[in-house]
Amino acid sequence: MVGGGQGSFIGAVHRIAMAMDQQVELCAGVFSRDEANSQATGEKLHVDPSRIYKTYQEMAAGEAALPADQRIDFVSIVTPNNAHFGPSKTFLDAGFHVVCDKPMTLTFEEAQELVGIVERSGLVFGLTHNYTGYPLVRHARHLFQSGQMGTVRKVLVEYLQDWLSKPQEKLGSKQASWRTNPAESGIGGALGDIGTHALNLVEYITGDPVVEICADKSIFLPNRTLDEDVNALLRFEGGGKGVLTISQVATGEENGLRLRVYASEGAITWSQENPNVLELARFGQPKQILTRGHAEYLCEEATNATRIPTGHPEGYLECFANVYLGAIEAIRAHIAGTPMAISEYRCPNVYDGLRGMQFIYKAVESADAGAVWVPMKKAE
Amino acid sequence: MVGGGQGSFIGAVHRIAMAMDQQVELCAGVFSRDEANSQATGEKLHVDPSRIYKTYQEMAAGEAALPADQRIDFVSIVTPNNAHFGPSKTFLDAGFHVVCDKPMTLTFEEAQELVGIVERSGLVFGLTHNYTGYPLVRHARHLFQSGQMGTVRKVLVEYLQDWLSKPQEKLGSKQASWRTNPAESGIGGALGDIGTHALNLVEYITGDPVVEICADKSIFLPNRTLDEDVNALLRFEGGGKGVLTISQVATGEENGLRLRVYASEGAITWSQENPNVLELARFGQPKQILTRGHAEYLCEEATNATRIPTGHPEGYLECFANVYLGAIEAIRAHIAGTPMAISEYRCPNVYDGLRGMQFIYKAVESADAGAVWVPMKKAE
Amino acid sequence: MVGGGQGSFIGAVHRIAMAMDQQVELCAGVFSRDEANSQATGEKLHVDPSRIYKTYQEMAAGEAALPADQRIDFVSIVTPNNAHFGPSKTFLDAGFHVVCDKPMTLTFEEAQELVGIVERSGLVFGLTHNYTGYPLVRHARHLFQSGQMGTVRKVLVEYLQDWLSKPQEKLGSKQASWRTNPAESGIGGALGDIGTHALNLVEYITGDPVVEICADKSIFLPNRTLDEDVNALLRFEGGGKGVLTISQVATGEENGLRLRVYASEGAITWSQENPNVLELARFGQPKQILTRGHAEYLCEEATNATRIPTGHPEGYLECFANVYLGAIEAIRAHIAGTPMAISEYRCPNVYDGLRGMQFIYKAVESADAGAVWVPMKKAE
Amino acid sequence: MVGGGQGSFIGAVHRIAMAMDQQVELCAGVFSRDEANSQATGEKLHVDPSRIYKTYQEMAAGEAALPADQRIDFVSIVTPNNAHFGPSKTFLDAGFHVVCDKPMTLTFEEAQELVGIVERSGLVFGLTHNYTGYPLVRHARHLFQSGQMGTVRKVLVEYLQDWLSKPQEKLGSKQASWRTNPAESGIGGALGDIGTHALNLVEYITGDPVVEICADKSIFLPNRTLDEDVNALLRFEGGGKGVLTISQVATGEENGLRLRVYASEGAITWSQENPNVLELARFGQPKQILTRGHAEYLCEEATNATRIPTGHPEGYLECFANVYLGAIEAIRAHIAGTPMAISEYRCPNVYDGLRGMQFIYKAVESADAGAVWVPMKKAE
Repeated sequence: MVGGGQGSFIGAVHRIAMAMDQQVELCAGVFSRDEANSQATGEKLHVDPSRIYKTYQEMAAGEAALPADQRIDFVSIVTPNNAHFGPSKTFLDAGFHVVCDKPMTLTFEEAQELVGIVERSGLVFGLTHNYTGYPLVRHARHLFQSGQMGTVRKVLVEYLQDWLSKPQEKLGSKQASWRTNPAESGIGGALGDIGTHALNLVEYITGDPVVEICADKSIFLPNRTLDEDVNALLRFEGGGKGVLTISQVATGEENGLRLRVYASEGAITWSQENPNVLELARFGQPKQILTRGHAEYLCEEATNATRIPTGHPEGYLECFANVYLGAIEAIRAHIAGTPMAISEYRCPNVYDGLRGMQFIYKAVESADAGAVWVPMKKAE
Repeated sequence: MVGGGQGSFIGAVHRIAMAMDQQVELCAGVFSRDEANSQATGEKLHVDPSRIYKTYQEMAAGEAALPADQRIDFVSIVTPNNAHFGPSKTFLDAGFHVVCDKPMTLTFEEAQELVGIVERSGLVFGLTHNYTGYPLVRHARHLFQSGQMGTVRKVLVEYLQDWLSKPQEKLGSKQASWRTNPAESGIGGALGDIGTHALNLVEYITGDPVVEICADKSIFLPNRTLDEDVNALLRFEGGGKGVLTISQVATGEENGLRLRVYASEGAITWSQENPNVLELARFGQPKQILTRGHAEYLCEEATNATRIPTGHPEGYLECFANVYLGAIEAIRAHIAGTPMAISEYRCPNVYDGLRGMQFIYKAVESADAGAVWVPMKKAE
Repeated sequence: MVGGGQGSFIGAVHRIAMAMDQQVELCAGVFSRDEANSQATGEKLHVDPSRIYKTYQEMAAGEAALPADQRIDFVSIVTPNNAHFGPSKTFLDAGFHVVCDKPMTLTFEEAQELVGIVERSGLVFGLTHNYTGYPLVRHARHLFQSGQMGTVRKVLVEYLQDWLSKPQEKLGSKQASWRTNPAESGIGGALGDIGTHALNLVEYITGDPVVEICADKSIFLPNRTLDEDVNALLRFEGGGKGVLTISQVATGEENGLRLRVYASEGAITWSQENPNVLELARFGQPKQILTRGHAEYLCEEATNATRIPTGHPEGYLECFANVYLGAIEAIRAHIAGTPMAISEYRCPNVYDGLRGMQFIYKAVESADAGAVWVPMKKAE
Repeated sequence: MVGGGQGSFIGAVHRIAMAMDQQVELCAGVFSRDEANSQATGEKLHVDPSRIYKTYQEMAAGEAALPADQRIDFVSIVTPNNAHFGPSKTFLDAGFHVVCDKPMTLTFEEAQELVGIVERSGLVFGLTHNYTGYPLVRHARHLFQSGQMGTVRKVLVEYLQDWLSKPQEKLGSKQASWRTNPAESGIGGALGDIGTHALNLVEYITGDPVVEICADKSIFLPNRTLDEDVNALLRFEGGGKGVLTISQVATGEENGLRLRVYASEGAITWSQENPNVLELARFGQPKQILTRGHAEYLCEEATNATRIPTGHPEGYLECFANVYLGAIEAIRAHIAGTPMAISEYRCPNVYDGLRGMQFIYKAVESADAGAVWVPMKKAE
């Protein structure tokens, strides 16, 4: 693991997600640029002191130098955005598979470069757009992919939080500090942190890419330079329209990622804060409430992504763990000599990472021009 | 009453809303351009046959000719949009107060003209933006007006329906027929029918007017010419931003008028389909669920607009009746010789009607130009 | 109208319910035992002063003495429980139809006597168990009556309020005063006020009568003598079991009448505070959310009991008005010389009133014996 | 681990719960009475083949024979009810700490005996009443323990499922098979499986024990002999009253454990299916919605029991893991030579297990006598 020292939120999440299914053991890491923090964290996690490294370069070299049956199988990168590309490249170059947090890189150029590295290496690169791991998100995708929903007409996606409503970055919050700092976060604030999730969710479920965006971004607190809040109009390849709205200063919102898609044959509603439920509407019929765990009516992908019976709520950590299971499946296949095609991975991949970076750049481009329409077709 | 014959939806609503509080008696009307329908409707409503008229012109003249203590006190106009202006002007000219359905007129010019007529006559003109009649909408307004919410940062308003998802206008629905016909509805489809409600609600509650709009409109069904669906970005005078999204083809949505306002000191959430509840959020505190009927913590305006104790749900008809009570109050004051200032009416007025027409025109202007920003400051 | 003076809650409700559909005009009344209150109320309601009476006996005599086309068609009795029987008997004896609030009488014996009077007179007697007027309650009944639900297994009915959590009767509340006074309310407190509604709702919907009850009643506030709270086990004729729980001291509950029935072929859930929704569950299938106003899938009785389209919420006053429409239908039929059988009324009748009184007595009998099982088969 | 072979539900849950916090490693086990299943399960879990045992007796002996630094620290017992006591006693006798599933034993006598063994040994015995591990359950307990809620007046606890609505035990379900079999489950069906959770939750939160019960039990499916459904009246030591209702044949219910407690100073509502929310009501004030993760207003116990920020839902596995953390804390303290008092454990203990067995026995006693009142004071 690279990153995830004390004060990190997402590092612990990754560790729990990996541990949950008892398929991964944490053996090595550089947990912080602060050596003491890294040491302390590693010890607390019972990592062999000889494998607590000072830098990711040392770690890549050190692990590569170990006998094949002792070295790590893959690395998890859970650092701030500006420290995604370097470690990813270094470990890939050293022959290790990578699971990396999102957004994939600091800049769009890095993302493009990383795509090339992954393509050339043939190694597995997984990106933790964790919300794709929820069973009912997978069923929603199935409904669209199987043609049961028809054509997308209207998409309303929102990701609303309030944790940056106050200047937490001045009150000692590490999280707030790097996320409001362009040097660490890149050109997107909320756009990178939560906007990329929102876009990824929409395209993952509908399979219908956004081709144009008109984004209006706002900063309400003084002394901030990155977007806290964005409202955007979307146009989809299939002719549908949509709204993407995100905020980190929306008082009372906690982690409000919610999606509604109205299509020609029906509509779905899903909300991350109540993830075990999927609403399905058909014109002129009673709304249906689908709940996780019902193999009688859910698709296989949804059923396979669940651990416990219906009514026993699963949450964020479980969906995160599902993304890890997807990456592990691909890594195991690679190790077994039967690598999967990237498009077959049951987890977001390097192209999703590139798409996320494109989204940030296009949204910023639109907003900086006064909220005008900007094309954002997927690079093919 | 003008309009409200068989096949009308809103006519019956107006009649119930008027009857509920036992302050209004229906004495005269022209209920349809179809004379037989008008007769049949009038008889069913026990209107004196001599006061069932053939045209609104006849009715205005006929009623004006009656002794003062026998003629109507005011007229309700519940016709399609293209028949709002004519009757309004005619009755005002004949000295009658008017309550009219929204949008106020067919064209912006008519709206401007009507403002002049109302101003010159000094007569009461009420507009049935009925959602302002809900007690908790009034309390929400109070929260903003009293300064308890601070400055508006983000507004999310949506009004989603699905009843035009199928070509109902070809299946014999009178409602669908005139609403999809520009000659009867004007240049706005969903914009006029529900968009005006959404805008009115936002400005009524926040007191913060929209000053710029960027609207993207869509038509999904073949052979339709008016907007079925609109997504719009908003900018507010006070610096806030927002999204207005409306649809009449959003499968599974019934009458989904929902408002969320995130302001510097907190946020509110209200939904028309569950109107007896208002959510209030303050940063770092548990969300509060305010419910109708609690004089302990609701403002007087909200308390006065309620008929029954908390927990006994009130609905659409009651909010509609509250708008009538507001108009009746103004009419009674006028009759008593102590007319209220228009700004004091406890019901939407002719300026709200003008604003609604401005909204339709600006949104269409924006959309027709490809969804670009258009200023829409209130005319002063 | 008998009762409904200033300080009354239910009197105004009855008046609105009657007025809403423009079929009833209030022409006469004795609105209070306090003559001044009665006069003031009558005048405010624009009742002809000559028809504001001092006592209900005078009113019955006075109205009977008027020419047939001028006298009232029926009387509404909206007094406290101890003043239901006298007026009911008097008006029936004078040849008037009666609509009476519940519980029907002060004592079980009075109820039995009233049944006899109604049966002998052939006049219409309607009882305002208003919750039977909700469209989705009627659809729920249809689901059971049409055999779509199978056999009842488990019923959970609750009616929870908190308005007597404080000694309101000492704080000037007229409502609280008579409801906590056995001389005015009878032997049941919450049992009579809300328990009878709960039982009525269950039996109305399921058609499966309770045959045994074991009721544990409680009084928490000092100086109260009537039950504030009751928990009861139920056994049904068809072999099902159930729980009835009511309270007027359940903090945070407003008017929480909620019903869940689990039957052999599915289950339904309905809640008075959100009455436009009915949940329907079938084993192994997604839950269905039925909403008011959908003629596509609701029964005719439900469709007929609705005034406005789906998504435009209806509430308590509308359901109350539906009960009046049922009574009016029966009264009109009687006037037209084609009286309906009591079992055909589309409103609760005198037998429902008797059943309610039996319920109060049996529950009290059970509770007074320490909460033991007591049979309560319907008298046939 | 004892139990948890293929076809088990709860075994996998225990393993995930243990793994999540990376404090426990599964080293040994006997996973099934079926040796092949046990072997296969153990191998799949990467357990050293030499430590996959044939019987729990062998396992206890085998592990005890290992050097202290190699043997297990504690055993998890996740077998059907009839195989709780034997392994528990055997491992305790061999000096191992025990975490055991509920209900604690097959019979009340076994439970009493186990209490003696645990008391004499001084070893840690944890019972997985997992619902006590939810952060907001812990906060609810805090509200009552700190005196903020006053005296309990009314408790409504329900635990409703539908998975036994069909004769699953005849359709090859292992789960259904042993749970409907008295030889494996004991004298309680739903009572043992879910009723014990319901009672435990109530007493854990309120601190106010049930002292009398009147339980009516039902069996609806043919050929079943254990209760599928129970409705019970409760009386509490502090004078409050309540209802406990459970079912495993309540169509549409998944894992509906819900608790409402109305007390003299307010009320709380919590539901397992939406566990990240706790409703708090105070008379005359807006209801408050408390959500997990808010250190600003939640007690320390609740804050400590959470892993991720508010809005990122936690679920069943996390609450289960919290119970394990409580047991691990006690075990670590014992190993460190500073054992905790049983009453200090942050997990349910052997006395909770005894209480659960008492509940089953008293409820059955009541029901078998026709649903009469039976005292059930806690044994002191």
